Amino acid sequence: MNYDIIIIGAGPGGYEMAERAAHHGKKVLLIEKSHLGGVCLNHGCIPTKTLLNSAKHYVHAKEAPEFGVTTGEVKFDLGVAMGWKQEVIETLRGGIAGLMKKNKVEVLTGEAKLLGSGKVEVDGAVYEGANVVIATGGSPFVPPIPGADQSHVMTSKEILNVETMPESLVVIGGGVIGIEFASFFSSLGVKVEVIEMLDEIIPFMDGGQAKRFRAAVKKKIGFNLGCRVTAIDGHDVKYTDKKGEEKSIHADLVLMSVGRAPNLAGMGLEETRLDFDRSGIKTDDQQRTNLPNVYAIGDVTGKSQLAHSATRMGEVALNTILGKKDTFRTNAIPWAVYSMPEIAGCGMTEEQAKEAGHKVESASLPLLMSGRFLAENGKKGPGQVKVIKDADTDVLLGVHMFGGICSEIIWGVAAMIESELRVQDVQEIVFPHPTVGEVIRSAMFSF
Amino acid sequence: MNYDIIIIGAGPGGYEMAERAAHHGKKVLLIEKSHLGGVCLNHGCIPTKTLLNSAKHYVHAKEAPEFGVTTGEVKFDLGVAMGWKQEVIETLRGGIAGLMKKNKVEVLTGEAKLLGSGKVEVDGAVYEGANVVIATGGSPFVPPIPGADQSHVMTSKEILNVETMPESLVVIGGGVIGIEFASFFSSLGVKVEVIEMLDEIIPFMDGGQAKRFRAAVKKKIGFNLGCRVTAIDGHDVKYTDKKGEEKSIHADLVLMSVGRAPNLAGMGLEETRLDFDRSGIKTDDQQRTNLPNVYAIGDVTGKSQLAHSATRMGEVALNTILGKKDTFRTNAIPWAVYSMPEIAGCGMTEEQAKEAGHKVESASLPLLMSGRFLAENGKKGPGQVKVIKDADTDVLLGVHMFGGICSEIIWGVAAMIESELRVQDVQEIVFPHPTVGEVIRSAMFSF
Repeated sequence: MNYDIIIIGAGPGGYEMAERAAHHGKKVLLIEKSHLGGVCLNHGCIPTKTLLNSAKHYVHAKEAPEFGVTTGEVKFDLGVAMGWKQEVIETLRGGIAGLMKKNKVEVLTGEAKLLGSGKVEVDGAVYEGANVVIATGGSPFVPPIPGADQSHVMTSKEILNVETMPESLVVIGGGVIGIEFASFFSSLGVKVEVIEMLDEIIPFMDGGQAKRFRAAVKKKIGFNLGCRVTAIDGHDVKYTDKKGEEKSIHADLVLMSVGRAPNLAGMGLEETRLDFDRSGIKTDDQQRTNLPNVYAIGDVTGKSQLAHSATRMGEVALNTILGKKDTFRTNAIPWAVYSMPEIAGCGMTEEQAKEAGHKVESASLPLLMSGRFLAENGKKGPGQVKVIKDADTDVLLGVHMFGGICSEIIWGVAAMIESELRVQDVQEIVFPHPTVGEVIRSAMFSF
Repeated sequence: MNYDIIIIGAGPGGYEMAERAAHHGKKVLLIEKSHLGGVCLNHGCIPTKTLLNSAKHYVHAKEAPEFGVTTGEVKFDLGVAMGWKQEVIETLRGGIAGLMKKNKVEVLTGEAKLLGSGKVEVDGAVYEGANVVIATGGSPFVPPIPGADQSHVMTSKEILNVETMPESLVVIGGGVIGIEFASFFSSLGVKVEVIEMLDEIIPFMDGGQAKRFRAAVKKKIGFNLGCRVTAIDGHDVKYTDKKGEEKSIHADLVLMSVGRAPNLAGMGLEETRLDFDRSGIKTDDQQRTNLPNVYAIGDVTGKSQLAHSATRMGEVALNTILGKKDTFRTNAIPWAVYSMPEIAGCGMTEEQAKEAGHKVESASLPLLMSGRFLAENGKKGPGQVKVIKDADTDVLLGVHMFGGICSEIIWGVAAMIESELRVQDVQEIVFPHPTVGEVIRSAMFSF
């Protein structure tokens, strides 16, 4: 064998696994058909957060007078924002390349074909490795709606390179991606309507908080829930509403964000005995596939579509290869939506906890309980913390938030849930004052 | 007895203890000679953070063009910022008053005198309680330097109401308060010099990070370390530098922030057998004083001068009164400095860990490892995470940070240290991507 580990796909699952494997002395080949960093860096997390940061600067500059800062006219320059976004992407790509070089990970550009356990073909050459890891990610799913092939109907990939600001946008699909783009464009004055098939946006969000979030942004974003898009007729998005009535919204631009599908094509998987279906490659809790020494991690498994889940799956796969016991657990994986206001959660929602058979107790507090939040967001700043515990055991099951920069606050909850803390244990943990995070602690005292 | 608990002082120690005691069905009398909320709300944490928020809006508006937002001329209106600060204070005071009323805590305005266990006098009337809690806080300490009594020499209390922006400011004392005000004024264009007696600012900060922090703000703030102020001659602050040379800095305004002293006067403590000295009232780990059923919490104990420490001490005192086992522990109390950039830490610094006899291993990473940090702070955004562990046991001892909004990120470290996690445990905790907090996780993989 030439390599200890061959990894196909250099997204946050693949490249981080490559780095850590090399850190452990393994000889690693990392194969990527496009750019280092995968969807996350090139067409996902990073470019969206960079653009959202620009939009936040716009909104903050507009709000500044109430805090004692006056400005001339505030204008958004899409070209400069896009330029900075591109610079961030290229800087981080360079960072990953440097990291691979420093750790002596061999990087190969090309399309990989899995020949079976231990063998991968790229451009006619066969590479042999003791272990093969498939980390090819996912792509936007475009449903077969008539008119979806028009140039002004975009996925999250194309809309990241839009050159002029539209006057109006229809977002089809109110998941994380849809809500982030709705937030970006609406903050800059674009008329935005979200059309969602389900009865609520962001399925893994606490139901009550989703409703409060929608209320907080209703002046900027229109929500059309329980509605099914039937066609995109030129610039008219046609849909059937909850009552079965046919309706239509005109939009300069349409974002198609109804979901993502695993990247399974082009690898010759059909010619192997690998167990997969259209939802992804089947893996166990150690990320093993049915083929010996072949692992799969990240979006291609269909288990979780979060970059940090992919990274964690890579760590579990690596530990398994190294002979260390490790398991991919999903009970304490935090998530965040970088909208304005932000949304974040970790652990079970009240609905999920009840479904899982817990006797549930919950406590909710507004973020305005925090002096810092009031100072920074004004008297009407929207936001809430909700804490969910098991009433019998006092064990913390989940924390769900929206408001302010809760994406940076939520991670500590993962530490608490992983440590299986009870609410009475959390009450003894000290939070710094004055912070927004403190409201989590206050909520623990509301039971 | 008329009350279960009489609390003297309505700062974050006193009023939160009152609320929680009432939540447990206790009859509580809360005595305050001035405003509800204590120093923290009225002259400390909250007004400084509100003003710093205004300064951040100013700085962000100035930096906005690089992210694609143009603003025209950016100006700071001190009157509006001060007005908003006052509104925040009054809103939160009203919030506490409402909380006390809702929880049926009796609030009395007046100066309290301790007559001994169980007895407190206010304005000639004697109040009896099964337990008495002293939570009178602390005040700025003004050293006997010639000229310190001039009206342009202020403590943190008076400077919060300054009516015109000075052209220059000398800050005597480079602790948390000094650095926050230095950051506020320098961000708004005021020429600021800090004079500190010790060889480094912020004593509980990691030494290497303090140096990096100073380098990051050196264009805005001058630092004069190892220097002793000898006199303030009109507007000239005279000091002896490290080499023993006499020097002088001219300043419109001087901030005296060399430390704080416990509020012990006026309570008739000398006439009781209470054990105290000028560093504070002596307490055990359950916040008991030497007098039966008399407790002391917060700044007046001299144990810790953080608002959240006071709150925690109040909880420990309450649990002790309720017969629940609890201890005031100091090993996992996070702290934050709300400067630009922010500073935060939890647990031991490398220096402290070595002194405590640990075989120490540490790992440091720049915050620019985080794609989000890069996107939001630019390619030169200053910041670092340092993780300290015990090399023999792998147990996490401390995390120290500066940069971005690390004050909101640090709390999770308290959860990890309280749970006595090892670095290998922390490696299994998933952080959301892309966040700044993730750099803590990355540092855990650098060992």
